Amino acid sequence: MQQPIGFIGTGNMGLPMALNLLNAGFALRVYDLNLKNVAPLVAQGAQQVNRPCEVVEAGGIVISMVPDDEALEQVVAGENGLLNRLGQGGIHLSMSTVSSAAARRLARLYARQGSHYVTATVFGRPDVAAAGKLALFLSGNPSAKERVWPLLQVLGKQLFDFGEEVQAANVVKLAANFLIASALEAMAEAAALVEKYDIDRVAFLDMIGQTLFHCPVYTGYGAMIAEHRYTPALFRVPLGLKDLRLCLETANDEHVPLPLVHLVHDRLLTALNRGREDLDWSALALSVAEDAGLEEHSLAL
Amino acid sequence: MQQPIGFIGTGNMGLPMALNLLNAGFALRVYDLNLKNVAPLVAQGAQQVNRPCEVVEAGGIVISMVPDDEALEQVVAGENGLLNRLGQGGIHLSMSTVSSAAARRLARLYARQGSHYVTATVFGRPDVAAAGKLALFLSGNPSAKERVWPLLQVLGKQLFDFGEEVQAANVVKLAANFLIASALEAMAEAAALVEKYDIDRVAFLDMIGQTLFHCPVYTGYGAMIAEHRYTPALFRVPLGLKDLRLCLETANDEHVPLPLVHLVHDRLLTALNRGREDLDWSALALSVAEDAGLEEHSLAL
Amino acid sequence: MQQPIGFIGTGNMGLPMALNLLNAGFALRVYDLNLKNVAPLVAQGAQQVNRPCEVVEAGGIVISMVPDDEALEQVVAGENGLLNRLGQGGIHLSMSTVSSAAARRLARLYARQGSHYVTATVFGRPDVAAAGKLALFLSGNPSAKERVWPLLQVLGKQLFDFGEEVQAANVVKLAANFLIASALEAMAEAAALVEKYDIDRVAFLDMIGQTLFHCPVYTGYGAMIAEHRYTPALFRVPLGLKDLRLCLETANDEHVPLPLVHLVHDRLLTALNRGREDLDWSALALSVAEDAGLEEHSLAL
Amino acid sequence: MQQPIGFIGTGNMGLPMALNLLNAGFALRVYDLNLKNVAPLVAQGAQQVNRPCEVVEAGGIVISMVPDDEALEQVVAGENGLLNRLGQGGIHLSMSTVSSAAARRLARLYARQGSHYVTATVFGRPDVAAAGKLALFLSGNPSAKERVWPLLQVLGKQLFDFGEEVQAANVVKLAANFLIASALEAMAEAAALVEKYDIDRVAFLDMIGQTLFHCPVYTGYGAMIAEHRYTPALFRVPLGLKDLRLCLETANDEHVPLPLVHLVHDRLLTALNRGREDLDWSALALSVAEDAGLEEHSLAL
Repeated sequence: MQQPIGFIGTGNMGLPMALNLLNAGFALRVYDLNLKNVAPLVAQGAQQVNRPCEVVEAGGIVISMVPDDEALEQVVAGENGLLNRLGQGGIHLSMSTVSSAAARRLARLYARQGSHYVTATVFGRPDVAAAGKLALFLSGNPSAKERVWPLLQVLGKQLFDFGEEVQAANVVKLAANFLIASALEAMAEAAALVEKYDIDRVAFLDMIGQTLFHCPVYTGYGAMIAEHRYTPALFRVPLGLKDLRLCLETANDEHVPLPLVHLVHDRLLTALNRGREDLDWSALALSVAEDAGLEEHSLAL
Repeated sequence: MQQPIGFIGTGNMGLPMALNLLNAGFALRVYDLNLKNVAPLVAQGAQQVNRPCEVVEAGGIVISMVPDDEALEQVVAGENGLLNRLGQGGIHLSMSTVSSAAARRLARLYARQGSHYVTATVFGRPDVAAAGKLALFLSGNPSAKERVWPLLQVLGKQLFDFGEEVQAANVVKLAANFLIASALEAMAEAAALVEKYDIDRVAFLDMIGQTLFHCPVYTGYGAMIAEHRYTPALFRVPLGLKDLRLCLETANDEHVPLPLVHLVHDRLLTALNRGREDLDWSALALSVAEDAGLEEHSLAL
Repeated sequence: MQQPIGFIGTGNMGLPMALNLLNAGFALRVYDLNLKNVAPLVAQGAQQVNRPCEVVEAGGIVISMVPDDEALEQVVAGENGLLNRLGQGGIHLSMSTVSSAAARRLARLYARQGSHYVTATVFGRPDVAAAGKLALFLSGNPSAKERVWPLLQVLGKQLFDFGEEVQAANVVKLAANFLIASALEAMAEAAALVEKYDIDRVAFLDMIGQTLFHCPVYTGYGAMIAEHRYTPALFRVPLGLKDLRLCLETANDEHVPLPLVHLVHDRLLTALNRGREDLDWSALALSVAEDAGLEEHSLAL
Repeated sequence: MQQPIGFIGTGNMGLPMALNLLNAGFALRVYDLNLKNVAPLVAQGAQQVNRPCEVVEAGGIVISMVPDDEALEQVVAGENGLLNRLGQGGIHLSMSTVSSAAARRLARLYARQGSHYVTATVFGRPDVAAAGKLALFLSGNPSAKERVWPLLQVLGKQLFDFGEEVQAANVVKLAANFLIASALEAMAEAAALVEKYDIDRVAFLDMIGQTLFHCPVYTGYGAMIAEHRYTPALFRVPLGLKDLRLCLETANDEHVPLPLVHLVHDRLLTALNRGREDLDWSALALSVAEDAGLEEHSLAL
């Protein structure tokens, strides 16, 4: 009989993902820094453990969904980490948005133990995760990917394989996130322009979403930007900033100039400086409006 | 019985639009600087005239689809122009992408003659025009808009009314075009980033078009950028540059800073400087690739 | 005996220049839209006239120092303009900051009358003009330049000849002004950075001016930016914006991408949108500080 | 009698600085990874040691001039590092261009041992260092700064004290370097503009250096940019890129958006991608020229 799947990091994204695995019949051992986060899983039959390394036996599979490079490195190479536990043939399926440098480093560490580090980054929000409809970007060792395939089919609706280099799926995730950020800036600038000509920005962005840009990023964020409605946040300003900073570092490492990423990154710095850390990252549109002299919007917050 | 509709400018876009009007049963009088352009319309029963003013009688309706501000001003206020011909209650339905300043100026001139200048800019390429599926942005006098409504229903599939100010539909068109240009830059940067990490840029942009960006701009242009395939051109570099320059002038007139428009505008200047005037405007992605050190692409041209 | 020199436009810059010519012994006929502006010159012996064309006889020399393209075109080709007055061998010495397109157009018009249009743009503020220490950039017909040379020697301390093309000196002036604007942005960003690290921005910019940047632009503007002291304005925001816009148009006409000019241009748009039209253009540093979260400065105004 | 001064890192900059100290009568113990680098100092009486920690006794003073954060951390906290050697009252005078984060971290480590970490960054090239005319930026503990003052007076001509926070002098150095980089970009853009109008770029930049920008950065780099003469390199492209990247990281840590730094940073990435790693960093002007369609210059290299 197969050992339970380990699952580390059951926050906003990890929780619905882990629930889906339970519902699909997988046994889970779960760990989160915050004990409260795992309670809904225990209620559904998951086994709670007290240290990261305890979620898995040698040769098993562990999934992680943690906030950043530091958290991931702690889970792997910190005290009570997975590194010495996972053993020959074990697989760490890493689903967080982290730097490509971190992915490469951890993959090397695991390789020395005979373990596999596989990357499967996710594209979608918690509600999409709950529906099992995430898009998943996959990269790493082919046989390891094959072994985790049944799990991925539960977690996501669309799977895209980007080859054997473990960092590939990280780069793809950062690039995809940047495409969203760019669309935010573009909509914000276009909306500021039409508004200065006394055209209804709501009508304008609504039209955009009905015509050439009939897709979730433009219809969803378009409505938020049109109305300057940035709460509840789908993705908070500091999280967006973190991803864009990772994107720039990743780009710099390979000498790729990305002026549009810089522009959006700086918008988010300004958003932070104006006390908008709890707003959705589309709130960068407030700075665009303010620079254009449409300042009443910021006052409304 | 109603007099024929005048139609001025039967180039790539104007020709399929005029054909649709003929097919819908409207009588047309047509004029184009290039006689050859009107031949297919004459073959379908349109009446050809030799001077702009001859396409319409006093009180009638004339549609124009010409390349730029200068051409439009010539058609209206030049020798043999429409200005003194259109008369009380006549309507000039202007469908070209021109500056908001030109729209306001011509509307004022017509107003003194009792004529109406109505703007109906179009969003779509010639094949979309031929299918009668353009999106149309409308602005101007309400009763004049009502009178041209039957024509617009033939020409477009989606009509969006942006109020009474004649320039509103021009600004909307420029802003919409800018959104497309921004998406090109974003895809080009993202593709350069993944390619530098040895990830297949075609697979990446294909994935984007299947997930959060499942809409024509990203799927259509995405494939072109992915493969650096810029001929045949849907919209040539100089046309894109013209529209972005109009957009910047329109923005400057109302003091709207648009850094992303600047960025894309400069990409197109560089494209021109590299001899790419016959390529599609998505060829700005070549400069992005070249700046990133992916130069073999440009050599391939 | 030689006829008097004509002088049109006796504002902040024109007045001290005209006074210097009077003091050097030149007879002047003067015109300004604002009668009050010429009074100090009349008090020193200048002859006042009521229409632009009256400042000069056929074959004479007229100097103009007016605000912009429109004013210059009015003085030349408007009612009572110089165009038909200057005649064979007459010289219009144009010292305003105008577009290269305007310079070319007017030069062509004059050429048909046998007159010469010579450009001599100026680099320096009113106090420098008063001291006769302007730098002058010269371009146009060689023999015409030779004839106005004695006047230029009174007006400026350093003369730089940029050849026969009339617009050359316009382009040089725009490029030189842009270099100043760039230095403002650079100092503003550097000062914001050090201030965020609790370093005295005054001490920092003072040091800069004592070391590698020991020159007027950095020492003079540096002190203003360091202390956020933007009144009295040496060069107001709208004037700076006008020059940068001319610079961008001039660049666009020859397909030169200038991203740094765009950046500074947009800073000035934002300055206008924040009600800073009466501040010196170095007040763009307030927007830099505000974006960095150093907002108390703007509140101080 | 006082113990010898330790000196670590005797490369292009460190060597002339150490020679000046010897010539001023200070006894030196020297260390460099590359043995050849210390030979000229040994010839002048310096004592060579084989490990960083051997350059100093407890309570002494050690100067370091190493390439980057990593080298500095190795010298301090690596095997045979200074950390456990410097002891109570010892002073590490750190003169390298490193990140403010590294400076803070090392200062904390030393503080636990009772040692002082003092920053004295330098502004100037090797020839300036040899002449003892560097500008020095100083920050750190007041009594420690007082103790190293006699050394600093030998090394530099101008000393600027930026307070007690050790990282202050690092930030000042990065900001000062950025001001130079900005001037390079500005001159490159201005030169491209005038050249497109057939104006002599050499004459233009020469004029700039004679008028409002009569200071070393503009006259020295101006001549290089005017003639596209980038060898021998004063400061190579990769070194410039390293400093600008440090500057951006330092800015990000405190949420300071610096769009002009981004622009110049990206120019240097592109320069690297075009094989210009051995050229002076002012070679960013080649990319500016190429974007403007003035490509013959790059072919000349």
